[in-house]
Amino acid sequence: MPQGRPVAVPDDGLTTRARRSAPVLAVHTGAGKGKSTAAFGMALRAWNAGMDIAVFQFVKSAKWKVGEESAFAQLDRLHAEQGIGGAVEWHKMGAGWSWVRKDGSDDDHAATAAQGWAEIARRIGEQRHDFYVLDEFTYPLKWGWVDVAEVLEVLGTRPGRQHVVITGRDAPQPLLDAADLVTEMSKVKHPMDAGRKGQRGIEW
Amino acid sequence: MPQGRPVAVPDDGLTTRARRSAPVLAVHTGAGKGKSTAAFGMALRAWNAGMDIAVFQFVKSAKWKVGEESAFAQLDRLHAEQGIGGAVEWHKMGAGWSWVRKDGSDDDHAATAAQGWAEIARRIGEQRHDFYVLDEFTYPLKWGWVDVAEVLEVLGTRPGRQHVVITGRDAPQPLLDAADLVTEMSKVKHPMDAGRKGQRGIEW
Repeated sequence: MPQGRPVAVPDDGLTTRARRSAPVLAVHTGAGKGKSTAAFGMALRAWNAGMDIAVFQFVKSAKWKVGEESAFAQLDRLHAEQGIGGAVEWHKMGAGWSWVRKDGSDDDHAATAAQGWAEIARRIGEQRHDFYVLDEFTYPLKWGWVDVAEVLEVLGTRPGRQHVVITGRDAPQPLLDAADLVTEMSKVKHPMDAGRKGQRGIEW
Repeated sequence: MPQGRPVAVPDDGLTTRARRSAPVLAVHTGAGKGKSTAAFGMALRAWNAGMDIAVFQFVKSAKWKVGEESAFAQLDRLHAEQGIGGAVEWHKMGAGWSWVRKDGSDDDHAATAAQGWAEIARRIGEQRHDFYVLDEFTYPLKWGWVDVAEVLEVLGTRPGRQHVVITGRDAPQPLLDAADLVTEMSKVKHPMDAGRKGQRGIEW
């Protein structure tokens, strides 16, 4: 647990208050489990603080409805009906999205990814949300479907106080360099190694 | 994402169905962020699947109310009032609990930890819950406040289908050996390295 005491005070001209409230860019990468799950856990915390949340799932199939999506729909309803927590929007980027490339449809995936990013960039410019989860966003970056330099430009100049969490394996080094918080999730052991399959409530 | 296809089918005498529904023991360890956050994210998923959830926070001070606790209290209320999701209990193990050892009070902490574990063992024996989060439970194990061999005995013989997630740094090797799923969260970069302090909605 953080003890709330910085190890060093940087000479960046900011007051402690300004530094403390600086918006966070976090990246969860690595080959292990928990990258997305921890991002959704952060979103849960942000919801509790009353933040307006938007989740963009870049590469999971739209058919794949994770349990978190249903749970956040309930939390969004709590906000709408009872004014508790924050609003939550959840966007899956089209049924064709999958980080397993399929025959001949790469162009469509690339275009859909680019359109998804353009929408996010627009919203960031408008300060539409307080907390963004860009789930599995490293893959379109890795595959060149979305330009890393443009992403860094938009994130680096984002107005106001908008937090962004990006998940996925193989995050590009410039993104890691730009991030405030980087955690690598490494697989030590996985049930599928022992021949197990996924199960509801655990894997989704 | 898991593709749902085991890399090997073990010769354990179980049907695929039995193996698939085997209860999971997961451990989130390492020095990075996201161990607890990912465990609470898993609990969110389990809540959505209608599981009965119990969280035991072993070492955070009772004064430290994380955002997840408030959010899960709302989810528990949704379950109680509208029958959505599962029930959630959240137990903080006494105000004296902290993994920062304090002067002369080690005995009390050790006794409280042991009592907490005894209660969990009782509940596991009764199959009281479906999904347990033992948050920061590695510390009482590491410090010898709770006996690792006894924990492994209770977990290894737990009846029914009870999932258990244990978080904390320095998980004992026998626990890792017994776990089905082990993820190590490594710190690559943290905002406090740049002199930032924690902020509401992000750190708690």
